[in-house]
Amino acid sequence: MDTQKPYVIGVDLGGTNTVFGIVDARGQIVAEDSIKTQNYKTAEAFVEAGVACLKPLIAQVGGVEKIAGMGIGAPNGNYYTGTIEIAPNLCWAHDCIVPLADMFSKEIGVPVHLTNDANAAALGEMAYGAARGMKNFIVITLGTGVGSGIVINGQLVYGHDGFAGELGHVTMVRGEEGRKCGCGRTGCLECYCSATGVARTAREILSNTVRPSLLREKDPETIESLDVSIAAGKGDAVAQEIFDFTGKMLGEACADFAAFSSPEAFIFFGGLCKAGDLIMKPIEAAYNNHVLPIFKGKAKFLVSGLMNANAAVLGASALGWEE
Amino acid sequence: MDTQKPYVIGVDLGGTNTVFGIVDARGQIVAEDSIKTQNYKTAEAFVEAGVACLKPLIAQVGGVEKIAGMGIGAPNGNYYTGTIEIAPNLCWAHDCIVPLADMFSKEIGVPVHLTNDANAAALGEMAYGAARGMKNFIVITLGTGVGSGIVINGQLVYGHDGFAGELGHVTMVRGEEGRKCGCGRTGCLECYCSATGVARTAREILSNTVRPSLLREKDPETIESLDVSIAAGKGDAVAQEIFDFTGKMLGEACADFAAFSSPEAFIFFGGLCKAGDLIMKPIEAAYNNHVLPIFKGKAKFLVSGLMNANAAVLGASALGWEE
Repeated sequence: MDTQKPYVIGVDLGGTNTVFGIVDARGQIVAEDSIKTQNYKTAEAFVEAGVACLKPLIAQVGGVEKIAGMGIGAPNGNYYTGTIEIAPNLCWAHDCIVPLADMFSKEIGVPVHLTNDANAAALGEMAYGAARGMKNFIVITLGTGVGSGIVINGQLVYGHDGFAGELGHVTMVRGEEGRKCGCGRTGCLECYCSATGVARTAREILSNTVRPSLLREKDPETIESLDVSIAAGKGDAVAQEIFDFTGKMLGEACADFAAFSSPEAFIFFGGLCKAGDLIMKPIEAAYNNHVLPIFKGKAKFLVSGLMNANAAVLGASALGWEE
Repeated sequence: MDTQKPYVIGVDLGGTNTVFGIVDARGQIVAEDSIKTQNYKTAEAFVEAGVACLKPLIAQVGGVEKIAGMGIGAPNGNYYTGTIEIAPNLCWAHDCIVPLADMFSKEIGVPVHLTNDANAAALGEMAYGAARGMKNFIVITLGTGVGSGIVINGQLVYGHDGFAGELGHVTMVRGEEGRKCGCGRTGCLECYCSATGVARTAREILSNTVRPSLLREKDPETIESLDVSIAAGKGDAVAQEIFDFTGKMLGEACADFAAFSSPEAFIFFGGLCKAGDLIMKPIEAAYNNHVLPIFKGKAKFLVSGLMNANAAVLGASALGWEE
C-alpha cells in the first residue's frame, strides 16, 4: 500500500441509493454521502451528480492525492471492461452498456474498478471481514436474490467473460417441479433461498398444512423472510421447518461447490443470516450429510464479518486497493 | 524454460501399469517404458522399480542434467503434499499416505510434483493440447469414472486441501431416484456419464422398451459403452438415445459449472469422446438450452487435443515444467 495514499473510495450502486464512502486501510468509513440512483435520465447526469457528491468527501480527507483508487459494486458490473451491461433495474443502463469506471476515473482522476455486488462483498470479506488470511472461500449473499463471490488462490473468479460466480443460478430442482426463476429458467437455488424464496416456502407450508404457527397471524401474501426469522427466534416450529428446508437447499448446493473448488469457508451475507444458528446449523448439517466423504467436516460455515458496517461500500472499496 | 534442461519426465500411474515417459517442450514423448503397478508390496519397492525403469530413459536423452522436473498423475494424488492418500486401487497405498513425490525426487535428483489424473490431463491440454492459450477452461474425463481438472486465471484449481475438481460427484438427481454411486452417495454425475453409467443406461432402456436395436445382439450384462458408440455410429436409434441422455446430463452439469467459473471451453477426454458429434452435439445442445442466458452460446465444447498420444503421460509431464 502506498502510505501517501491512505484512502480508497467505495461505491455501493443500488437500485434506489448510491452510497459513496471514503475508507481507510483498516476498513473504517471516514466519510460518506449518497444520491438517488434513479433521479437521473442519463449515465452522464448520474456521474455528474456522483462527482458533485464525492468532491466534499474527498476534500475532507485532504484531497484526491490521498486516494489510492475507487471501487464500484453495481448490478451487472463487469470487472474486465469496467462497464455496467444491460442492468434491468437502472433506468440509465437498462438497454445499453455504460463505461462507468472510465467515466468516473476521468472526472475524479484515480483508477476505478467495478464489479458486481456479490464479488465486491467477497473482496470486502477478504480485506476487512471473515475471510482475512483466506485464499479459498465462497461468499453467498442472501437477499432479494442469491448472489456469490468466489475466491480461489487469493483471486476473485471472474471467468472468461467477467460474469462468473452466479451460484444463485445453479439448478437445485430439475424438471417440471422446479420453481420458476426470474432468470427465465426453473429450479435455481435463488428460487428457494432468496428472501422471496423463503417467503414462498412459508406460504406453501402454511397452505399445505393446518399446523399452528405464529406466521398465521399475518396475511400469507404479506409474509416476508424477516417474519420467518422472528417466528423462528420465538421457537415457532413451522418457521424452523422453513429454515431447515432453506438450509438443506443451501447445504446441498455448497456440497456441489466443494466438489468444484474445495473452499476453506463458506461465508453467508444478508438479512437471513441475522437468524444465526437457526439458519447456519441446518446449512452445515445438510452440507456434511451430503458432501463427498473426502470434504466432510473440513469447511467452515461463517456469517459475514461485515454485517454491522456498510458492507457494500466496504466491499466495493476493497477494489480500490487493486493496481 | 531452462534451455539447458529441455526435457521433463511424465508418469502415468494407473491401477495396472505405470508408464514413464521423457517429454520435450513440444509435447513429444522421446523415450518411454513401463512397469506393473501392483507387482510391488510396498511403496519403497515400487519406487525402486520405477527408478530402475527410468534410469536408461534418462541416459538416452543425455542424463539427469537435461531434465527440468518430473510430474506424476496418480489416483488420489495431492498436489500440495506430493502424497498419494488412501488409494483403494493401489495395493501399496490403499491404507496409508505415501510421500511419492519426495521418494522419487530423492532418488532421481529433480523436483517432482504430483496430482490426480484429471488435473494432469488439464495441464496437458494447456501445455500441448486443445487449451493452448486459454486461461479459463474445464477438462472433463469420461472413463471408468468421471473426473475433472479446472483451470481458472491460468492456474489449476486445487482448493484449500488439494482435492478440488471432483465434478464427477456433483449431484444431478436428488433424492431416492438417484443411482447409487461408488462414493457412497446417490445421483452423482459419474453414475450417469462414466463408461459404467452409459452401459447402465443402455440396460435400462433395453429392458424398459421393446424397441429394436443392434444392442440387443449382446447379453445385456456384457454391454459396454464402446458397444453403444459402435451402434450409434451405425445409426442405431436406441444407441443415439443413450448418447442423448448422457449428453443431456453432461450439458446440464456444464451449465452449472458455467455459473461457477464461466470457462472459455469445456474439453472432454476419454473413450466416450471418440463418438465425436454423436455425444458432443447433445452435450452442447443441452448446455445452451439450460445455461443462464448471459452465458448462452459463449463456451466452446471441444474434444481433447491429446487423444492420440499417450495423454496421461503428457499431462503429468506438464507438471514437470513447474518451478
